Amino acid sequence: MIHNFNAGPSILPKQVFAQAAEAIQNYNNTGLSILEIGHRTSLFEDVMNEARSLVKELMLLDDQHEVLFLHGGASTQFMQVPMNLLNEKDTAAFADTGIWSTKAIKEARLFGNVDIVCSSKEANYSFIPKDFAVPNDAKYFHITTNNTIYGTQWQKIPSVSIPFIADMSSDILSRSIDFNAFDLIYAGAQKNIGCAGVNLVVVKNNILGKVKRTIPTIMDYRNHIKEGSMLNTPPVFAIYVSMLTLRWLKEIGGVAEVEKLNNAKAKMLYNEIDSNPLFRGTVATEDRSKMNVCFTAIDKEVESNFLEFSTKNGIVGIKGHRSSGGFRASLYNALPLESVQILVEIMSSFASKAG
Amino acid sequence: MIHNFNAGPSILPKQVFAQAAEAIQNYNNTGLSILEIGHRTSLFEDVMNEARSLVKELMLLDDQHEVLFLHGGASTQFMQVPMNLLNEKDTAAFADTGIWSTKAIKEARLFGNVDIVCSSKEANYSFIPKDFAVPNDAKYFHITTNNTIYGTQWQKIPSVSIPFIADMSSDILSRSIDFNAFDLIYAGAQKNIGCAGVNLVVVKNNILGKVKRTIPTIMDYRNHIKEGSMLNTPPVFAIYVSMLTLRWLKEIGGVAEVEKLNNAKAKMLYNEIDSNPLFRGTVATEDRSKMNVCFTAIDKEVESNFLEFSTKNGIVGIKGHRSSGGFRASLYNALPLESVQILVEIMSSFASKAG
Repeated sequence: MIHNFNAGPSILPKQVFAQAAEAIQNYNNTGLSILEIGHRTSLFEDVMNEARSLVKELMLLDDQHEVLFLHGGASTQFMQVPMNLLNEKDTAAFADTGIWSTKAIKEARLFGNVDIVCSSKEANYSFIPKDFAVPNDAKYFHITTNNTIYGTQWQKIPSVSIPFIADMSSDILSRSIDFNAFDLIYAGAQKNIGCAGVNLVVVKNNILGKVKRTIPTIMDYRNHIKEGSMLNTPPVFAIYVSMLTLRWLKEIGGVAEVEKLNNAKAKMLYNEIDSNPLFRGTVATEDRSKMNVCFTAIDKEVESNFLEFSTKNGIVGIKGHRSSGGFRASLYNALPLESVQILVEIMSSFASKAG
Repeated sequence: MIHNFNAGPSILPKQVFAQAAEAIQNYNNTGLSILEIGHRTSLFEDVMNEARSLVKELMLLDDQHEVLFLHGGASTQFMQVPMNLLNEKDTAAFADTGIWSTKAIKEARLFGNVDIVCSSKEANYSFIPKDFAVPNDAKYFHITTNNTIYGTQWQKIPSVSIPFIADMSSDILSRSIDFNAFDLIYAGAQKNIGCAGVNLVVVKNNILGKVKRTIPTIMDYRNHIKEGSMLNTPPVFAIYVSMLTLRWLKEIGGVAEVEKLNNAKAKMLYNEIDSNPLFRGTVATEDRSKMNVCFTAIDKEVESNFLEFSTKNGIVGIKGHRSSGGFRASLYNALPLESVQILVEIMSSFASKAG
């Protein structure tokens, strides 16, 4: 039995794998593969429509928010957001909470000015900044709601009076927050939405069409909205897998239910880290992520021994990001509680043996 | 039995469907799905490396050509090409052979000047222009090698002395041409390479790095080359399906062999069109595409009757593009000769009954 703690691409529900495999051989009893159907047939239009509707329903979005499934991942949005929203002399405000924020900031600077209103860089991004002011004359304020590499997460979403934008790649649909408070949300699918190869963008219509530059056709959100997210051939299969995963989430009770599960998983693992003499959490307790649990071993030998021991016991994907080392266990929506139980047992028995 | 003549996304080899379905349930006996493995593991790096090597091998590319698998489709390349190659005061030369050329021209105009050196627009794109000159001071010359909507194809690739760029989305890997004669080739995967959701780009290193503008990180080909086509999380599954399809192509004998098959399929269908009293080819005989065979019926009633008759007999995807009407049978690499035989028999028996 394998327990997949990959940071992304990452575990999806078993039923999604079964349904996706079936659809590749024979999609909905058409005798055709999902990979060979035309995207402008009702066969696929139904998939796209259901996926978009499920996002609206699960995120409780109001009618001003449009749902798009676009090619690319968050790295595309780092430039597409300022291209659509930031004039050359405008300023965008950013919270700098890690590498992904830094990358978003770098791209925004190509289109306008950037004001970094807060940063935890000096502390190796081990906490989420609390005291900062967002200037009212900035065009928008951008945060990264969960920082996959460091294991921090905004537990309290700030309230701002200017357009509010979030990269939610690694915690979207994992907890109940007011998604309508955001004017633009983007997320690569490969954690809680589906597989790699598609990008979810939720955008409020009224923030668009205000920049002076000419935007290439494929980069202008308005064109995608007008064409119902079918401006060009979409990534058909990745959207199909998203639809299946969203269906599963609805079936198990939606965001509120999965949040309870996610809370239970995170609590179980952090408890073990805090009580086990061989491991230590790496970030401020109050900012701990419920999606990516980062921890280190007391020394390098313990680290490599535990990696070997856990791998032998079916644990996959807990090696920390190459830039921060240590361990990272990702607890995305589809990871069962049982996998966390096993990990905790392994950590505990490893400590007993060492002790 | 279904015969899939879809224009794209389109038919892929049956063995690719079987292998892809298997990999979704259990990838290479790892106990993991191909959808849940990390892209920076050797499991996926092997896939990416093999896919890139197979492209080099099958296209007989020299060492100056880099192979990239990027997010998006040709519509992204329409803007990414001029963004990387065309300064504001430079001119790009284009052959205008259809809607896709027109879209590429539109995006190039956002970055520099465009010189349309030839066009068949006045004749509803029913032929490939022959007599034209490409100015030597243009930055590059761009053609669309096969025009999916109209059913025309460049049978003779022109020879030019400036950088040569081609959108080969709908005929790449279908025939032996000198791919090294091009400085940049792009193709959405969803015809001859694999499924929708990834874009093949083949580019010569020495044409890059010459524009003055700052290019967003994700749009700069050089960054993708430097990172071995893994600048960000790639569309893992779409690349895996590409690798499987490229493996299949190699197994059946490569481009030279599939070209024979494609020639036989096209000849069989055009012969029927030319001899059947109810149907007519729509483009200049010498420019007929071997990938997309476009034809019309002698009147609207025959057209709708034949569509119904062929659908009842298992023929899928032969309705013409919404902008040109009539019929379009796409004969991509993976379509078996038997499917064309069936279509021809149906056309013939339909005519017998009508006569």
